[in-house]
Amino acid sequence: MNSPSIQNAQGDHRAIQVLAFDIFGTVVDWHGSIQKEMAELYPQVDGDAFALAWRKGYQPAMARVMQGELPWTLIDDLHRLILDGLLPEFGLDHLSEAQKKYLNRVWHRLQPWPDTVEALHRLKQKYILCTLSNGNVNLLTRMSKSAGLPWDCILSAEVFHAYKPDPKTYLGVARIFDVAPHAVMLVAAHHDDLEGAKACGLQTAYVERPQELGLGRPKDVSPRAAHDLHAHDLNDLANQLGC
Amino acid sequence: MNSPSIQNAQGDHRAIQVLAFDIFGTVVDWHGSIQKEMAELYPQVDGDAFALAWRKGYQPAMARVMQGELPWTLIDDLHRLILDGLLPEFGLDHLSEAQKKYLNRVWHRLQPWPDTVEALHRLKQKYILCTLSNGNVNLLTRMSKSAGLPWDCILSAEVFHAYKPDPKTYLGVARIFDVAPHAVMLVAAHHDDLEGAKACGLQTAYVERPQELGLGRPKDVSPRAAHDLHAHDLNDLANQLGC
Repeated sequence: MNSPSIQNAQGDHRAIQVLAFDIFGTVVDWHGSIQKEMAELYPQVDGDAFALAWRKGYQPAMARVMQGELPWTLIDDLHRLILDGLLPEFGLDHLSEAQKKYLNRVWHRLQPWPDTVEALHRLKQKYILCTLSNGNVNLLTRMSKSAGLPWDCILSAEVFHAYKPDPKTYLGVARIFDVAPHAVMLVAAHHDDLEGAKACGLQTAYVERPQELGLGRPKDVSPRAAHDLHAHDLNDLANQLGC
Repeated sequence: MNSPSIQNAQGDHRAIQVLAFDIFGTVVDWHGSIQKEMAELYPQVDGDAFALAWRKGYQPAMARVMQGELPWTLIDDLHRLILDGLLPEFGLDHLSEAQKKYLNRVWHRLQPWPDTVEALHRLKQKYILCTLSNGNVNLLTRMSKSAGLPWDCILSAEVFHAYKPDPKTYLGVARIFDVAPHAVMLVAAHHDDLEGAKACGLQTAYVERPQELGLGRPKDVSPRAAHDLHAHDLNDLANQLGC
């Protein structure tokens, strides 16, 4: 199968110095990791539905912050806010504070997709690799350490005091590394994130993660012409970038 | 020789989760790296004196920022400000803009001390390793990539908008990693930096770098009781921390 990137290549890959990665769903499998941990800790709960419900609260919680309804709040704390709302619904309102804290930190223990670690090591030979996630620095650092993700730098909404798709985040990466926006490529499995980056002048690579929402709920991962690259996974991205 | 840490151990090493490292002089050899590069680029210049003069401008330049005389300025730009003042003094006022830019980025190319890379890999097995430097994120990331320094996270004065020894920097590390100050140990070859950290409740490790100012200008590296640990180099620190 020919790589779809041939049809929708637009940018100049030779200009890229920095690859900035979305994390949840792009680099790590939040749904599978939460489902697996729920099966071990609370087998009576439908872990698939629980993972989806937790993640479903994520965008609305960030929107409350960006609209000023909540003060600046880290994702660890937003995750906890959403979790506290879910526990009664899933019959888990008996959990102790220590159990709730432990469960909330499942986001620090997310597992990478099978191609992630190998591909990041390949890409790191040629580019500066950084995270660009709405997750906070503590979450990203501990998760990356546990998963063996070899970032050159952890960048986060926390550093910019703004959540993606706020332009401050995308342009912040270019500013920090003292390069033109065009020298940064955002790598993500989500069109809205990539569109936000493209509007700021970054290059973009879409990564197919058809199982992001679970095995039984395949995502439409068909190519869109707006992105500079379209990759089946991160090893395919490394191939296309000549790593 | 017995380790001096036996005499001045004060903290509880078991509490440590995060090791935060000063960079210039502690992890990398700024004097030797600049002297070496000057010998290659501009052999007519006294590279030893040039390195010392450049570094001598560093504290006063940061003081101008912290006192409000200059707006917030990254170290890359402060280094350039100091460099521009030095060039005529060293007979280098004929340099082109491209040559000045390249020379200013020597700070992105500093070389590690011989023990650094091995010791960081050892310490990384047990602790979260981060930088805590007045250098900006771009400088630290590019330097660490080129030198092979395996940080879990790059933290910098740039993130806190304050230069060490401002308490915002030391306490910022504990805040970001959601731990008590006592769970962070600052590792540095400079007493004033360690004293600033200690005053904020961090644990401290002094690292001897007798050649920081050049081979012919040995520093007094005798132990001081104020620090929790005193290490001959970073491998000695790894030994003392049971890595």
